[in-house]
This record gives sequence, C-alpha cells and structure tokens, in this order.
Amino acid sequence: MERIAVLGAGSWGTALAFVLAENGHDVRIWGHRQQVIDQINETHQNEKYLPGVELPHQIKGFTSLEKAIEGVETLILAVPTKAIREVLQQLKSLTDELFTIVHVSKGIEPDSLLRISQMIQQEIDTKDIVVLSGPSHAEEVSRRQPTTVTSASTNIQAAEKVQDLFNNQQYFRVYTNPDVIGVEIGGALKNIIALAAGITDGLGYGDNAKAALMTRGLAEIARLGTVLGANPLTFSGLTGIGDLIVTCTSVHSRNWRAGNLLGKGKNLDEVLENMGMVVEGVRTTKAAYQLSQKYDVKMPIADALYNVLFNDVKAKDAVDALMSRTKTHEMEDLANVLGEKLN
Amino acid sequence: MERIAVLGAGSWGTALAFVLAENGHDVRIWGHRQQVIDQINETHQNEKYLPGVELPHQIKGFTSLEKAIEGVETLILAVPTKAIREVLQQLKSLTDELFTIVHVSKGIEPDSLLRISQMIQQEIDTKDIVVLSGPSHAEEVSRRQPTTVTSASTNIQAAEKVQDLFNNQQYFRVYTNPDVIGVEIGGALKNIIALAAGITDGLGYGDNAKAALMTRGLAEIARLGTVLGANPLTFSGLTGIGDLIVTCTSVHSRNWRAGNLLGKGKNLDEVLENMGMVVEGVRTTKAAYQLSQKYDVKMPIADALYNVLFNDVKAKDAVDALMSRTKTHEMEDLANVLGEKLN
Repeated sequence: MERIAVLGAGSWGTALAFVLAENGHDVRIWGHRQQVIDQINETHQNEKYLPGVELPHQIKGFTSLEKAIEGVETLILAVPTKAIREVLQQLKSLTDELFTIVHVSKGIEPDSLLRISQMIQQEIDTKDIVVLSGPSHAEEVSRRQPTTVTSASTNIQAAEKVQDLFNNQQYFRVYTNPDVIGVEIGGALKNIIALAAGITDGLGYGDNAKAALMTRGLAEIARLGTVLGANPLTFSGLTGIGDLIVTCTSVHSRNWRAGNLLGKGKNLDEVLENMGMVVEGVRTTKAAYQLSQKYDVKMPIADALYNVLFNDVKAKDAVDALMSRTKTHEMEDLANVLGEKLN
Repeated sequence: MERIAVLGAGSWGTALAFVLAENGHDVRIWGHRQQVIDQINETHQNEKYLPGVELPHQIKGFTSLEKAIEGVETLILAVPTKAIREVLQQLKSLTDELFTIVHVSKGIEPDSLLRISQMIQQEIDTKDIVVLSGPSHAEEVSRRQPTTVTSASTNIQAAEKVQDLFNNQQYFRVYTNPDVIGVEIGGALKNIIALAAGITDGLGYGDNAKAALMTRGLAEIARLGTVLGANPLTFSGLTGIGDLIVTCTSVHSRNWRAGNLLGKGKNLDEVLENMGMVVEGVRTTKAAYQLSQKYDVKMPIADALYNVLFNDVKAKDAVDALMSRTKTHEMEDLANVLGEKLN
C-alpha cells in the first residue's frame, strides 16, 4: 500500500481516488476549489462532480499542491488537457523529485499537435509516464459497476505497477499495452466521433446512421494513428472500439451531449455555455483537423465537424454530405490503414 | 428497372421491398401467411412486421412461390435461416432457371456448420450468390433514415449489380466487398454478442461493462472468422463493428431483447415464448460453440453463452466469470487474430 496523489478533483479524478482508496492506498486528492476540497474532507462527498457517492474516508483533500504531494511517488494527473502545462509548471517549481506520472486525460494540444505524454515530457522530468484509458464512465466506476481499462507505457514495468495499484477483483480490471501512441490517439479522437454521433442523434437520424458513422470514424482514427506510429491493433481494443462505443452511446458522455445540442440547432457558444463543463472534443477537433492536414491523412468526419464548429456550416448539411460520399467499395478506406502490412 | 422477387414478408424482407420499389423496380413479395399478403395487396401495409409504414403500391404480394418468381432474375432471400433449405427445395421443384440469389439472413447452421451461402450452394444451382448485410434496422429503413450496408460476392460484378438495385441517394447506401466469408461470419456472430450484451444490461451492469463485452466479442468473432478464411479487415467494417454496435445498443434488436430477459432471470423457454419471433442468436450460439471446438479457437463469450442457454448456468455467474478472466495483457487475444500477418 502506498501514498498516491490524484491531481484534479473532477468526476474522473474522484472516481479513480475512490478505486485506489478501496484498494487500501493512502490517497490524497488535490483541487483548486476550496469548496469541493472541504466537502471531500468534511462530508466525504463530491457533490458537484460525483453526486450521490460516499467516498472512502481515508481520501484526504488538499488545495495546496505542495502538501498533496508530500511523500508521494506516483501522481495521477486528472486535470483537463488545457490545464496540464500549468499544473506541471507549478509542480516543477515545488520539487526536483522524479515522479511516475499517470495521466488520464484525453486530448491533443492544438497547434503544437502533441499528445499528452509528449506535453508532460516537454514540461517536466519524470521517472515514468503511464496513460490509463478505456471505456469508463466515472459515475459507473464509483458505483462499482464492472469496468475494464488499459494501462500503457513504453516501460512495461511501469504499466504493470499502475495495473497493480488500480486492479480491483470486484469491479475494476486493468490490462497492459505498450502502445502509448495508439492508446492516446484512440482516447483523444473518439471524442470527435462522439460529438458527431451526438449531432446525428440530435438531427433525429437513427441507430443505422450512428453505427455507420462510428464505423467510418474508427477507420479514420486508425488511419491517422497508424501514420503517427500506433499499432493498428490497439484501435480494435478497449481504448479504441471500446471507448468509442461507450462515448458515443451513453447519456453520460458530455461530448455526445454537446453534439446532441449542436444537432438540435444550437451554435457552439450556446452549447459550451449550456454544458458548464469542459468539452474536450471541441479542442481535439481542431487538433485532428490540423493533424490530417499536416500528415495528409483523409479524415472526412473530422473535417466535417471542424466546419460545423468553426466555419458555420450547418450540421445537417455536413452530415448529409458525409452520407453521400462517392466511395462505393467498403475496403478502400480500411485497406489504407493496414494495406501495406497485410499485403 | 427490373422485376425482383423478395422471398419472405417479415420486417427485413418488407423493408427491402420498400427500398426496391422506391427505386422504381417491379417488386413481388412472397410469404406463406395469407393474411399478411392480403394486407400488403389491399391496404399496402404489413402491420405485424412493419407497423405504421405505407408500402409503395407497386409491391405485389403472393402466397404462390410459382407466381412470385415469374419473369424474375434476381431473388432476395429474406426468410429465417431455419427455413432456407425448405424454400430453396420448393423453388428447385418449380423451375430449372438460374437466379441471382441475394440472401439477407444472418446465421450459421448448427451441426453442418455451414454459412448461408454454402447452404444455398448445397441446395440449388445459381447464377450468382450475393450477401447483403450491415447495420440496418428494418424500422429505420422504412422510415427513410440514412442507412449503409455491404453487398458481398465472390463475383464482384454480381455484388455491384445488387449495389445498383438497392442504392438510393436519399437514404440507402450500398458498399461492395468481395469477402463473403467475413461478411457472413460477422453478421451471424454479432447476434451472440447482442444476446450477451442484453444479459449484462438485464443484470443491471452499466455501459462500461457492455463496451468491454462488445470489444472482446468482436475480437473473438474476428479470431474465428480469420481461421475460417475471412479478411480480418472486414470485421472493422459495416458488417463487423457496425452491425455489432447497432445490434447491441438498440432497443429494436430482438437478440438484445432476448438477452435482456435472460439477464432478468427468465429461462430460455420463457424468453422464446415471450418474443414470439425468431431469435437467430440462439441457434448461432450453438453453431459458434461447435465451430470453436472444431477449429480450436478460443471463444470465451460464445462458450459462456452456450452454457447459459443450454447447460443451466446462471447468467450472473457466467458474466462474472468472463469479467475476472486472468489474462492481463490486452494484446494477447487481439494479436492472435492478426499476429502472423502483422509480424
């Protein structure tokens, strides 16, 4: 049993703190909202982000990062992608210690086009970097519903150590995978497809259309990921298909909900105001669009969504254009993904 | 524009007749229930199988197979898997003509372990055999909701001809694929995973568990299919992932509904009685179990479901056993699918 700090007291950070504490670890959770941290310490609840869940009493909340990381070797980085650099800079100003950093965010930084582990590497020296990802709504984890995720690191021993910290026989199973690129790309880009799936649902299209969109969406994620160096098999796993399914078909998904509002005719500003939470897929759409341009990879769904979000194209026109693409041989797109390797 | 006969007046046969008629073809639909056929001819409805839809008036219903196939070159075979041999024998007794047979059923014959195109080949000489499959609920097609399917044949010209017959710019897009084995295996085996997904939902497990099940389910379908000669890429397409998603996540799916009742504690006999419709997944589970034994392919989900359906194992025990399998490296299973081709 060890002392672990979870940085970020949102839904997912709190749910992971819940699992670690149930596994017997000494868990410290850091957040910048005094009210949330006080509530965790006083009533063992996080009503704003994980309502209705009683947290294990050994979880201690801190608003001081310095105090939260005292005696800690492993940090769970659970802040929005947007805040990662700032938090790491703060961390670096406090200590020279090398941590194992487990990041659980999903996104790609616009403009720099870096994955999250690359952003971490740029900001701070570490012992190891591990990404934990998979089909896992926080609400279900904190209700002990069976959940499976993947722990990925280029150092497989580090991935296995994180597997041991989180594995819970009753409801939380962790698999390892050495393919950090594939895990990070799959996790980030599924948010784009979830936004698009929300749009088709919001437009009143049915399950047939959504399944087609998800199928083509996974193909374009795999196409980009493979060009960036991922193992194409990763996209058939928990962090690829698995996470895509859960994000596109669940009412818990905020990306789907944002898309749904777009499909119903709201514009981006109205949607973001209405959500009151970070919608990672919006920034990721911009990054994906830039990546597809830079590496010359065809990503028709990401392109269409980019135009809806940032170029005032109507959602219905974008979806109808996608549905009537001229390609008629199913394997043309897919074959590009694996073609050379399979021939 | 040509005369086409649809054999089978169930939901899917009627929806396909609808599309063909909207595309201007002279469509004849054959069924054995006088009441259903009379209703199609008199009120242009099929209330039992496609309620609330007005059928194009040029669709003509027949209870005589001989009359239905008069002047026809292309037959759409849309009867339950169980009835296919009987219908083909009847057809053979009526004429020596060679037809292009487009089958749209999803299943594998228990004991013989034949795919549907193989059953057709055994029973009758044909001009061509084409399989039409994909994520496509009949209810949505008949409401002109955007839908995509795959037309597969070893003779790609035949697949393209069927593509031309069905393609509808407004809502029905057909892609071609030469991989008949992959399309048939994907279509058949997703029904098993839909039954299992219904069970986890019926047990009250959440979206995380269902996504994990679907991910592992697709891996075991691909594993078996590849051993049987399919192109592994097909399982990442419309008839693989696409159809799996729509069948496991939609309330329209009768396999999911049957599984849901099993998860809620009903036994197989009660479920089948309650459904009052054919549940292809039940027979396919038996066939998949036999195939996995014959070809020595690991299919833990199919095995578990076989035990629930035919060996009185409790659904909860079977699902919990699946969730706590000892394998901890995500790629172990997946690598077996494509391993040799990718290394």
